[in-house]
Amino acid sequence: MVDEDKLFNLLGNETRRMILRMLSSGPCYTTEIAEKLNVGQKAINEHMRLLQEAGLVDLYVQKQSRGSPRKYFKINKSVRLEFFIGPYRFDTSLAKLFDGDFKKLFLEFPQLKEFEEKVKKSRHIREISKLSLVFDSLNEEHAKITQAKDYIEHKMDQVRQQCISVCDQLGLDDTEKRIVLEIVSAGGVVSTKQLAERLNIGEDRAISVLSVLEDKGILLTQ
Amino acid sequence: MVDEDKLFNLLGNETRRMILRMLSSGPCYTTEIAEKLNVGQKAINEHMRLLQEAGLVDLYVQKQSRGSPRKYFKINKSVRLEFFIGPYRFDTSLAKLFDGDFKKLFLEFPQLKEFEEKVKKSRHIREISKLSLVFDSLNEEHAKITQAKDYIEHKMDQVRQQCISVCDQLGLDDTEKRIVLEIVSAGGVVSTKQLAERLNIGEDRAISVLSVLEDKGILLTQ
Repeated sequence: MVDEDKLFNLLGNETRRMILRMLSSGPCYTTEIAEKLNVGQKAINEHMRLLQEAGLVDLYVQKQSRGSPRKYFKINKSVRLEFFIGPYRFDTSLAKLFDGDFKKLFLEFPQLKEFEEKVKKSRHIREISKLSLVFDSLNEEHAKITQAKDYIEHKMDQVRQQCISVCDQLGLDDTEKRIVLEIVSAGGVVSTKQLAERLNIGEDRAISVLSVLEDKGILLTQ
Repeated sequence: MVDEDKLFNLLGNETRRMILRMLSSGPCYTTEIAEKLNVGQKAINEHMRLLQEAGLVDLYVQKQSRGSPRKYFKINKSVRLEFFIGPYRFDTSLAKLFDGDFKKLFLEFPQLKEFEEKVKKSRHIREISKLSLVFDSLNEEHAKITQAKDYIEHKMDQVRQQCISVCDQLGLDDTEKRIVLEIVSAGGVVSTKQLAERLNIGEDRAISVLSVLEDKGILLTQ
């Protein structure tokens, strides 16, 4: 599976975003993509190679009623990428599709249960306008949940700010502060290797700052 | 405010992502950024200019106890960018911080109410380890809500797939199918201009396909 950094590099290119948008409503073949986007076929080939390598796109060959078989591309799987940036926050996350336990989820969010039924029943719907209504109710629930998520993230930001102000009162320097924030954000436990990577410092340096913080009684090293 | 496309272009660059990560734990000055990332100052200046233009980063000048004043950069605001890609889905969204109505939110999600209290009380906490516990409980709730969101998105994918199969049964062609999907995903109403942009076709073409779909009794034009 592609990692977050690679995905950002891929999505940083506008043509690739347009290709993915095209494929998201159905498979396409190379010439079709090149023509619709008005980009040379050679460039499209290179973009497709990168998207395939990342596992975002699959290639298959389909015989044509006339002429030679065509190479088609399609989206391989559903991916969600999230990026957060704030004065005390930098986060990226790559999510898979839902694969959790429904029962547990419905216990926490009983309002979701109706959608399980609704979408199951909608398999028999043959009218687009009715499917559109089902989708609409999902859209509405989605907006509510997004707001709940925003709320929790807002609270997270507040706690991060509180951490910063405690660090300032304790007279911690910049690196010490960053390490404290990383540990708190990670839920209390981070390896020295992860810390070093995230702060872009050597692991030795991370270990020595950690022991200073331990001496000051701020953190515990496991 | 920066739009989604510009943000993707900005984040597509690894150095810029590293700069944002650095700034997310506190303001930095140019030389500091250049040295830590081992990138030339001229290149950093250009990155900073782009980040400033996008409104992600602010510049301020701070006097130094010795020597000339320094230009500092800091993160300007909290931004969340989401990107979805799937066989029947392409979505990007840019969110602001929570600015909704708490009462309404707590009615839908009573479990969030305790966090309002918890984070308010945590202002008086002076121990990092205790703040870390508060953060931990937020992390846990965040994971649950994310799962609920994943669930709804999964159901959305299923309804989109049902739309596709109805379209196939109705014998719709590719563009017709794409237009139906866009309209359903948007909750039933999309302007012809938006449709044209999203499908990368002319507005004339969008209008003519819409009238075909109307003649077939699949859609209504307003």
